[in-house]
Amino acid sequence: MNPDLSLKSIRAVLIRQEETIVFGLIERAQFMRNGIIYKPGSFGAEVGADCLVGYLLHETERVHARMRRYTSPDEHPFYRDLPGPLLPAVANYENPLIECETNVNSEVFGVYRDEIVPAVCRGGDDGNYGSSSVCDVMCLQALSRRVHYGKFVAESKYRAGTSDIGEAALSGDRNRLMELVTDLAVERDVISRVRQKAELYGRLEVGASAVPRIDPDVVAGLYERWIIPMNKRVQVEYLLARAKSAVS
Amino acid sequence: MNPDLSLKSIRAVLIRQEETIVFGLIERAQFMRNGIIYKPGSFGAEVGADCLVGYLLHETERVHARMRRYTSPDEHPFYRDLPGPLLPAVANYENPLIECETNVNSEVFGVYRDEIVPAVCRGGDDGNYGSSSVCDVMCLQALSRRVHYGKFVAESKYRAGTSDIGEAALSGDRNRLMELVTDLAVERDVISRVRQKAELYGRLEVGASAVPRIDPDVVAGLYERWIIPMNKRVQVEYLLARAKSAVS
Repeated sequence: MNPDLSLKSIRAVLIRQEETIVFGLIERAQFMRNGIIYKPGSFGAEVGADCLVGYLLHETERVHARMRRYTSPDEHPFYRDLPGPLLPAVANYENPLIECETNVNSEVFGVYRDEIVPAVCRGGDDGNYGSSSVCDVMCLQALSRRVHYGKFVAESKYRAGTSDIGEAALSGDRNRLMELVTDLAVERDVISRVRQKAELYGRLEVGASAVPRIDPDVVAGLYERWIIPMNKRVQVEYLLARAKSAVS
Repeated sequence: MNPDLSLKSIRAVLIRQEETIVFGLIERAQFMRNGIIYKPGSFGAEVGADCLVGYLLHETERVHARMRRYTSPDEHPFYRDLPGPLLPAVANYENPLIECETNVNSEVFGVYRDEIVPAVCRGGDDGNYGSSSVCDVMCLQALSRRVHYGKFVAESKYRAGTSDIGEAALSGDRNRLMELVTDLAVERDVISRVRQKAELYGRLEVGASAVPRIDPDVVAGLYERWIIPMNKRVQVEYLLARAKSAVS
């Protein structure tokens, strides 16, 4: 897909991603926390030093790398040692971003494991390690995409171009950049829309009362405290990288 | 999860699966049909004689088999040559089903490729082969689970035990069994609930107008024409296998 860099079109993508994330969390919430799947080295020699979720994520990324997933500028792998793509490059695709190495996936993984899973899942161990890990991989990939989409947001804001952003980036002023990429009205909209989606999706589960629903306030809180801030940090790092590449 | 075999609890699982399926189809519908990903041998030596979706499904099943996915009686692989599980068996899990080899996944794959994808996706080729294939794998796994859950439904109906079912199974009367497992009122409920879910999920996408929604009638029709009938055929096959195992 050739991304359209208007802020309107980028926001449509982010709105679409909310559904994937909310739905992924609802899927994960069917199972208990199952803390052991996040503990490195708990599953024997073949899984090795990694935790079970990391192992599954790594194996999934190996397969998806073959499908050229990580040649797309809106995808960022959690692991570095991945095979090359089997598919040829997408014809006529023009990457609208400048080169920017920022990859905050280790933070995404930590926040997911330590904040998000405990917030959406009941505590305890139900033995559903495989199913929980499969949901985790889906959630982690969706969250990573959402957070790193900040690069597109930043490029769009840069091109819409108030000179402030360019100047703050050139002078390397992270705090000023963070102020400039912050739009509290938009953030409030995102948070309230996510809460609404979690409510609606929860309501659909009437009849499946055995399956725990997800708390809309918890999902809204996760967006507010973690997902939006990580996205903004990616925006700041992108703008700094952009200023450097303009100078050189 | 130790499955509870009451029809009520089984229906709750099926209702929950509807959300996964409807959501999976909405995800797939973001991309065009991309017919080439279903054509065997179109992606070079490494993908080989399989089609691209088959290749990704096979690789995903290899990874999921390591996570013991296919030791669960509600999971049926599309491919046979899978590695053994890395995880030990789930402790204290009692499989409530009798041994039944029925696996209709080749039919699930064909129906998905020839009926479901053309019904939910716009025609044409947008080059998003990897993303489409990733969605396809998710949909195929969800559909397979839904269809083969017929084994649990059948076991539950058998245990609830009108003698008719046992007799028809013993005499190998497929037509009579199909009549006995058919409950038109329940089917109507399923179809109308699925239509409602597709409507609601579609409504959530307001704001992302670039992304095509899914037609609720199309999704309802897919359930009516394909998903429910395949599930009932699995029920019949299971009851036949059950009668044989009772005799032997």
